[in-house]
Amino acid sequence: MYEVEVKVRADHASVRERLADRGAERVNAVEQEDVYYDAPHREFAETDEALRVRRERPTDAEPFAELTYKGPLVEAESKTRREIETEVAEGEAAGDILSALGFDPAATVRKERERFALDGYTVTLDSVEGLGEFVEVETEVDDEGSVEAAREAAFDVLRDLGLDPDAQIRTSYLGLLLETESEE
Amino acid sequence: MYEVEVKVRADHASVRERLADRGAERVNAVEQEDVYYDAPHREFAETDEALRVRRERPTDAEPFAELTYKGPLVEAESKTRREIETEVAEGEAAGDILSALGFDPAATVRKERERFALDGYTVTLDSVEGLGEFVEVETEVDDEGSVEAAREAAFDVLRDLGLDPDAQIRTSYLGLLLETESEE
Repeated sequence: MYEVEVKVRADHASVRERLADRGAERVNAVEQEDVYYDAPHREFAETDEALRVRRERPTDAEPFAELTYKGPLVEAESKTRREIETEVAEGEAAGDILSALGFDPAATVRKERERFALDGYTVTLDSVEGLGEFVEVETEVDDEGSVEAAREAAFDVLRDLGLDPDAQIRTSYLGLLLETESEE
Repeated sequence: MYEVEVKVRADHASVRERLADRGAERVNAVEQEDVYYDAPHREFAETDEALRVRRERPTDAEPFAELTYKGPLVEAESKTRREIETEVAEGEAAGDILSALGFDPAATVRKERERFALDGYTVTLDSVEGLGEFVEVETEVDDEGSVEAAREAAFDVLRDLGLDPDAQIRTSYLGLLLETESEE
């Protein structure tokens, strides 16, 4: 499975109006706390991988936790990566197992996300602690060959919302946070 | 949490009779497939740790999977270890995440287990593929100080079942299987 995702900084108020005009359906809202881990045997910053334990509190379901591995970019333009993920019953235990194996918590990203469905894409309004407001347009495709078309269609969704695909931010929230911290 | 566990080789037929005499309650039966992983940065055989993805099919519940870390022995006599465990929604994804991080499947242990409750202990009749029949007596205690008393009581349970605590096998099924393989 390949996640195709484009992201820009955007004031949420105007995007909300456009979403309402286009008849986008509000899916849900969630709070996410993501703890990213360093590896004892690899420099993830160099190998371009990530290992994460996410705790999520949705408005429309029970809280849950997920363990996620993100592989290196396979398609740089749209930030497409291999992603392997499973829900875990106990996020704390998953983190403890990683710590016991020598993986250390490196950074925590907290955000509130509001999700809308539009034209087969998920449009997410993100408020990220320490970073501000963003909009993500995202979908999933089964094979690498479908990535390019999905990315172009995601750009169309951005334009439709009055946003500029050229303003795309390819750095993850984690990366942006680490940049902010190193500037301080 | 500390797992206190003693194990002997034993023909199941006679133990079943004793369990019936003592009024032990049959809890359930399960099939377990355990995949143990090697680490890319540590020699688990030397550090005395283990990392496992278990897939379990119980007779009385839905199949499930667990991710488990076992730390080095804290009490050698009874094989007591720190254990950190969480159920995972997708055992295959958990294994794929470990593989992507450089952990390799090293060995697989398959067994059928029948569990009984007796005097606050779990008595398990194990039929292990490639190894034969065993009986385990097991309980959990919260602190290291309670381990010794729990171990002595587990020995009493063994005696009560007509088994000899001195015949205790401290090697794990994984270890026994690896020994068998290296002898072949």
